[in-house]
Amino acid sequence: MKLADIFFQMKNDLQYLENELEKAITTKDPLLHDASNHLLKAGGKRIRPIFVLLSGKFGDYDRTKLKYIAVALELIHMASLVHDDVIDDAEKRRGKQTVKAMWDNKIAMYTGDYIFAEALLMATTLENPKVHQILSKAIMEMTIGEINQIRDFNHWDQSLRDYLRRIKRKTALLIAISCQLGAIVAGAPQSVVTALYRYGYYVGMAFQITDDILDFVGDEKKLGKPAGSDLRQGNITLPALYCYHATPLGTTIREMMEPVQTTDKDQLIISEAKMSEAIERIANSEGIEFAQQLADRYILKAKACLASLSDGSAKESLDEIANFIGKRET
Amino acid sequence: MKLADIFFQMKNDLQYLENELEKAITTKDPLLHDASNHLLKAGGKRIRPIFVLLSGKFGDYDRTKLKYIAVALELIHMASLVHDDVIDDAEKRRGKQTVKAMWDNKIAMYTGDYIFAEALLMATTLENPKVHQILSKAIMEMTIGEINQIRDFNHWDQSLRDYLRRIKRKTALLIAISCQLGAIVAGAPQSVVTALYRYGYYVGMAFQITDDILDFVGDEKKLGKPAGSDLRQGNITLPALYCYHATPLGTTIREMMEPVQTTDKDQLIISEAKMSEAIERIANSEGIEFAQQLADRYILKAKACLASLSDGSAKESLDEIANFIGKRET
Repeated sequence: MKLADIFFQMKNDLQYLENELEKAITTKDPLLHDASNHLLKAGGKRIRPIFVLLSGKFGDYDRTKLKYIAVALELIHMASLVHDDVIDDAEKRRGKQTVKAMWDNKIAMYTGDYIFAEALLMATTLENPKVHQILSKAIMEMTIGEINQIRDFNHWDQSLRDYLRRIKRKTALLIAISCQLGAIVAGAPQSVVTALYRYGYYVGMAFQITDDILDFVGDEKKLGKPAGSDLRQGNITLPALYCYHATPLGTTIREMMEPVQTTDKDQLIISEAKMSEAIERIANSEGIEFAQQLADRYILKAKACLASLSDGSAKESLDEIANFIGKRET
Repeated sequence: MKLADIFFQMKNDLQYLENELEKAITTKDPLLHDASNHLLKAGGKRIRPIFVLLSGKFGDYDRTKLKYIAVALELIHMASLVHDDVIDDAEKRRGKQTVKAMWDNKIAMYTGDYIFAEALLMATTLENPKVHQILSKAIMEMTIGEINQIRDFNHWDQSLRDYLRRIKRKTALLIAISCQLGAIVAGAPQSVVTALYRYGYYVGMAFQITDDILDFVGDEKKLGKPAGSDLRQGNITLPALYCYHATPLGTTIREMMEPVQTTDKDQLIISEAKMSEAIERIANSEGIEFAQQLADRYILKAKACLASLSDGSAKESLDEIANFIGKRET
């Protein structure tokens, strides 16, 4: 099965969810309306809703029930992006201006709060307390992840484990619970729920590592942001970290990334020339290959989790999505 | 019953909740730990936990169950304050520096997110779906309230209804659900739950109006912030609004509050001299009396809601707290 076929098969249900997403953020407040819609229209792959729907196929599939969790998870994801952009001082995302760039940090903070509150409202329509427990636990972990990201900004002495824990909280966990909750809401048996959670976790890890690779080597136009954005923001991802710690380039990178104290504002800066050079060197280093191998390993683990699930188009789709995530270019 | 007696009677349970609050925000992250603890130690009246406990007395009182809702509500309140201080650019609260002042807006945003996530985690321990629905609905309304507050900044053409709707969302709703959820968790009958919700709503409205009065006429030292802070931040509260619309002072205030366009930054400012004069005039106007009368009316309505409840020390305490809120000086 090709990825295009998966989307074609799910087209109606995805359009249905898109309408539900739009309904969920509808508000009379003109400012909030504009900011939330800007965010919604900026797109996104909607991978969390896709995982919810596909996982729901392993039980009693009912999109009118699954929507509560699919929309809630996508809204939580969107809300976390708006707050992230404040943290990262990001001007662009997916080629579009961020909320904080179009309006300001305060509006971005409150737009995030609003979308987040809508997500909760959506999720609480489901009366299963387990759903809320899983959701609130994940939100908690995600928040800690974001805060650790600030803590780790520009810290080159972090370990691979620090990085993995951070991307687990930043990305993998929400994808894992998308699969888990889709299966729970559809009433799938516990063994299926567990297998899907693990599949989602591994796919999510691979997804974020690929994201971090693409930030160095991806097509700037397709990504909608300049190469090396992460490093520029102080976010040290796997290719950079590996390069720094495990290649002969380490010392060079170390010297290049030595910040210069500016006299006027007591700020530490790195010159644009040095930064560009560091980004290019990392993009051409073994760090990329190492990260790609790790992503591939996660993809294999994800696919292995599907073995115990019953055959059918949902399983094939999940398998194909895993293949795609390992090779994606945007 | 005196207020001091109420606190004395509840001393053990309040201390228990204080410990639970501290446990809830415990984190290994040093920055988050400092920011959250700073917030916790900055105090607060803990009125939401008090209302939860007292309302719980109308059913099967069990502090080990009530704590989940009491701590969650206080954390939600704390989280909303941190985000509010970002919106309001507030440097001080209760005489202590705000998180955004001690650290910065970003840290304040994330500290709020973290405390909020902890609150959710706490609340979801309770398996009653109704609890989560009430909570998420209230969070939604609070968020809209905060955003409307930004929208209404410096807008003198707002109506009394706009103001009342705003303070309902800002304050009254969370106090109302403190009473409601305390009763629900204790398994009190529906009629009791409804009466306590309404009591909380009225008390909450009176509480916020009194807050808004004190901002003009309160003791700066006791309040821990300069007089007229609201107006300085562009938050037009009842005394100012009444003064502007309904007293002969209206035209004067209108002229005084006419902002001057500054040349350098395209900013609208009001001179400190004019601002101070406007604050003093409002503090000495009928606006204060009008607001006080409205607060008194809400207190009477709150007390009336208690009539249907069974007599006992909990009812007496709620009655006394209502009296106190109508007359408080800090």
